[in-house]
Amino acid sequence: MNRFVVLRDSYGETQMLVGDKDIETQNVLAKVPYESILEVKGTVLARPKDMVNKKQATGEIEVLVDKLKVVNESKDNLPFNIREFQKAKEPLRMQYRYLDLRFPQMQHNLRTRSKFLMKMREFLVNNHFVDVETPTLFKATPGGAQEFVVPSRHPGLFFSLVQSPQQFKQMLMGGALDRYFQIARCYRDEGSRPDRQPEFTQLDIELSFTDVEGVLKLVEEMLGFAWPDHLATIPMKFDRMTYDYAMENYGNDHPDTRLGFRIKNCTNVISSNKKLVTGDKFAAHYIMFPKEYANLSKQIKETVTSLSKNYPKAKLVQSKVASTKEWTNKISKLLTHQVAAEFVIESKMQDESVLFLAYGDKKEVLALLGKIRLEYANFLENLGISIRQKGMHFTWITDFPLFEISEETGTLQSAHHPFSAPNPEDIQWLKSDPLKVRALAYDLVLNGNEIAGGSIRIHDPSLQRTILDILQIDGSTLEHMLEMLSCGCPPHGGVALGLDRLLSIMLNTVSIRDVIAFPKNFEGRDPLSGAPSPISEKDMKLYHIRSTDKAKK
Amino acid sequence: MNRFVVLRDSYGETQMLVGDKDIETQNVLAKVPYESILEVKGTVLARPKDMVNKKQATGEIEVLVDKLKVVNESKDNLPFNIREFQKAKEPLRMQYRYLDLRFPQMQHNLRTRSKFLMKMREFLVNNHFVDVETPTLFKATPGGAQEFVVPSRHPGLFFSLVQSPQQFKQMLMGGALDRYFQIARCYRDEGSRPDRQPEFTQLDIELSFTDVEGVLKLVEEMLGFAWPDHLATIPMKFDRMTYDYAMENYGNDHPDTRLGFRIKNCTNVISSNKKLVTGDKFAAHYIMFPKEYANLSKQIKETVTSLSKNYPKAKLVQSKVASTKEWTNKISKLLTHQVAAEFVIESKMQDESVLFLAYGDKKEVLALLGKIRLEYANFLENLGISIRQKGMHFTWITDFPLFEISEETGTLQSAHHPFSAPNPEDIQWLKSDPLKVRALAYDLVLNGNEIAGGSIRIHDPSLQRTILDILQIDGSTLEHMLEMLSCGCPPHGGVALGLDRLLSIMLNTVSIRDVIAFPKNFEGRDPLSGAPSPISEKDMKLYHIRSTDKAKK
Repeated sequence: MNRFVVLRDSYGETQMLVGDKDIETQNVLAKVPYESILEVKGTVLARPKDMVNKKQATGEIEVLVDKLKVVNESKDNLPFNIREFQKAKEPLRMQYRYLDLRFPQMQHNLRTRSKFLMKMREFLVNNHFVDVETPTLFKATPGGAQEFVVPSRHPGLFFSLVQSPQQFKQMLMGGALDRYFQIARCYRDEGSRPDRQPEFTQLDIELSFTDVEGVLKLVEEMLGFAWPDHLATIPMKFDRMTYDYAMENYGNDHPDTRLGFRIKNCTNVISSNKKLVTGDKFAAHYIMFPKEYANLSKQIKETVTSLSKNYPKAKLVQSKVASTKEWTNKISKLLTHQVAAEFVIESKMQDESVLFLAYGDKKEVLALLGKIRLEYANFLENLGISIRQKGMHFTWITDFPLFEISEETGTLQSAHHPFSAPNPEDIQWLKSDPLKVRALAYDLVLNGNEIAGGSIRIHDPSLQRTILDILQIDGSTLEHMLEMLSCGCPPHGGVALGLDRLLSIMLNTVSIRDVIAFPKNFEGRDPLSGAPSPISEKDMKLYHIRSTDKAKK
Repeated sequence: MNRFVVLRDSYGETQMLVGDKDIETQNVLAKVPYESILEVKGTVLARPKDMVNKKQATGEIEVLVDKLKVVNESKDNLPFNIREFQKAKEPLRMQYRYLDLRFPQMQHNLRTRSKFLMKMREFLVNNHFVDVETPTLFKATPGGAQEFVVPSRHPGLFFSLVQSPQQFKQMLMGGALDRYFQIARCYRDEGSRPDRQPEFTQLDIELSFTDVEGVLKLVEEMLGFAWPDHLATIPMKFDRMTYDYAMENYGNDHPDTRLGFRIKNCTNVISSNKKLVTGDKFAAHYIMFPKEYANLSKQIKETVTSLSKNYPKAKLVQSKVASTKEWTNKISKLLTHQVAAEFVIESKMQDESVLFLAYGDKKEVLALLGKIRLEYANFLENLGISIRQKGMHFTWITDFPLFEISEETGTLQSAHHPFSAPNPEDIQWLKSDPLKVRALAYDLVLNGNEIAGGSIRIHDPSLQRTILDILQIDGSTLEHMLEMLSCGCPPHGGVALGLDRLLSIMLNTVSIRDVIAFPKNFEGRDPLSGAPSPISEKDMKLYHIRSTDKAKK
């Protein structure tokens, strides 16, 4: 009997035919395990007409095997089958990543990543950008994320692994490398936050003599140029909204604009019931879903109730409105009948809609409704009701505040980083009302995820010193930056794109780990080698350190 | 009086003309320091004929200033003048790197680097290579260079910063990403070796189903494609020699082939004087320079004598040969008259040449003459006598030994790394005579510097295990690699190019630091920020470490 074998390489599959008289090859094939490496010499034949497979690139031919050699035999019983992606559990896929990478989906993800990065490079190089590599072993940056430390041979002294090339790219501007880019490895030790990697890749861009408009246009054109042809097209120009608008309408600064329903303000209406008003930051907002998306099951109600517990300064009303009349009656105890009736008119409430109304501290009200908005949409989509639009929805968020109050310490800190320039219109308030000052800073949001951020930077050394003073950052740790600005530094600004997340959304993967060849697991460990691991006494001595706790077995 | 000002940007210079009646601008210009950022609006005029500067791209025009704005003023008295490259001492250049980068030479170096890397990427992508980013936080590799360690949040456990993506690129081959490349950041903590950087960049390449010939051809074609047009052209095919040939003729494995004079063997002649023969590894070699390059001053003699002290098992004769007759007489006490006369004939010695003859332990003899050969050439070139050929001299060194004896421990170790494949012809000697086994390994040498190295790798898991056993490496530290080879791994091989050194030679810079934007200094410190620096108690706690020595003030 003829025997068929499918030979797979990185580019596709081809069917081999072993004749019934070729006993030797038949015997070899009977024993060799799947996933072994074979070398075949033979004759390409047209398949019989009824065997043609139009869906396969090589579906019209087969190869009659003349010689077959087993180049490297695989062992039997591999931990999972290469034909069933996603069936294997992720820890197993990570541990045998070299097998996992053979899945056509993983091949597609990594090959698309390579092509996309190359197209972005091509765009930037054609636009006179210079690819400059900057160090990763650097000094700790004051403020910001937790940085990995690297002990040195100098007793008691450590490098930090850079969070981003921020300072270097600004020094390149000071160095007249006026258009810089780099696909840069960055490091942040954020413990085990899901979907974050301790090392990640960003496309880092900085240019001199530019403004907000210049940077935004550059990124739009670059993404338009580089976006893979075989995927959903993207708009020429991206939507824009201010930070304030995003907070007011979406409850966060990375709005998921695939979802049409926004948060609306009803402070005027609700606050006419003085009993409800608490504090001077009182606000009332709501989000409403019409009949076709109305589904307030016990499960979603409970989820929302438990969400609301994180926002103790916001009071929440969640209602399935059978009829506006019934709702008005029911709620009048709380709102008064008149306020309820006014709300029905103002909100254009319709029968059988679902309403989430929150009032109290404005910040908490908006944050809560922002969360509910997404949770509710996820809930519907889990039921198979698609409420979000398809495709790639890009939005620029502009006019971020320059400062914010740290939740940890209660003091003023940079919303982005201390190098972002204040909006010149707002400099007057720097000292008197710093929270009012807007930055020339922007984020790019794709389908509800921040994928890029940047700003125009401060180029005036005295303004930079003022900002550091306001932030109570010791200028001596950034003396090299202040000095650089004093030596004739051009005005400049830039942006950084988080490539792992961007690719994960572009390729619609379950996790960013599916667009990274060798990711760390959720504990920040390397599942292949088991790193981190103990080091030798010799290394401890060389680096003048001692472990204060023993490794757990 | 009219006043002229030259405005410089990253692309060139343009002459500005301020009219004698424009007192306001004249006053501004009188005060504004050099290197300030100016914005000028004006009218482009043809220069008067006698003022045209043909050497300048903008030499035919000047700009009559209408409006001049000081955008960012530089301070007075910058630490050095941007017009005098190399006059500033390197530590100062490093400390004010952003000023240093403004020198046209530094601009040219970094911009050429960017273009060259892009062309190599272009070549590789066009040849179906996939750019894959691999982790830098990994497990310690057994053997090899000192690796930086990175403490983790897991008590007592550390990452190591990768020396190279070696294991990852092999796993990609196991993962069917059959043609991989990456411009990869690598780390080695070599203390303060001159011209080495703790972090450096290599172009890392690996491919499946290839052989030595395949890799060598790929690199030749890639460099030919990417080499900058405005620099010296390079040959289509590179010279090749075996490791043994290089050691025998140049005294090292990275021969400077710009220098025509080679080491020659005279063991037969010299060993006929039995008195001189010591041990079974006895050899006698020499290198001779003819009249036009003969200069054996006291200074070079002393340098050579002090060199020879590092090779106690080699005896050295250094002579300025006035006439062969005189030399024969003088040396006959040592060699016997007959041996001396034979040597004159065999070596075709001519009057007024310079001779370095060494005998004794073969390894030391060759190493010593290899050093003398280079030192002598450097000495002549410092006197302005050019003995080396100009241009780019590439040579492949092949057939490296698989193993060598560690100078530190006296035991067997890998000459490259434990994944290099032995030459199939020599596998028979793996256990009986391992030092005789050649590897399928190769280095690329440019003008006497190793700029690339690679090998065909072992794909057979049992052969890999045998090699680890011979090396007494604990297989459990490389279990993931052995497992990978057992799951159907294609035969594969690759190469890595050290880009910093390659660019330094290409651009003929004094130091590799001149092709790196922000190098560390010779102590491995960052001259800009002063890193490494002390870290906080909080960080020490987070990473479960304590410093055993205090930082020096």
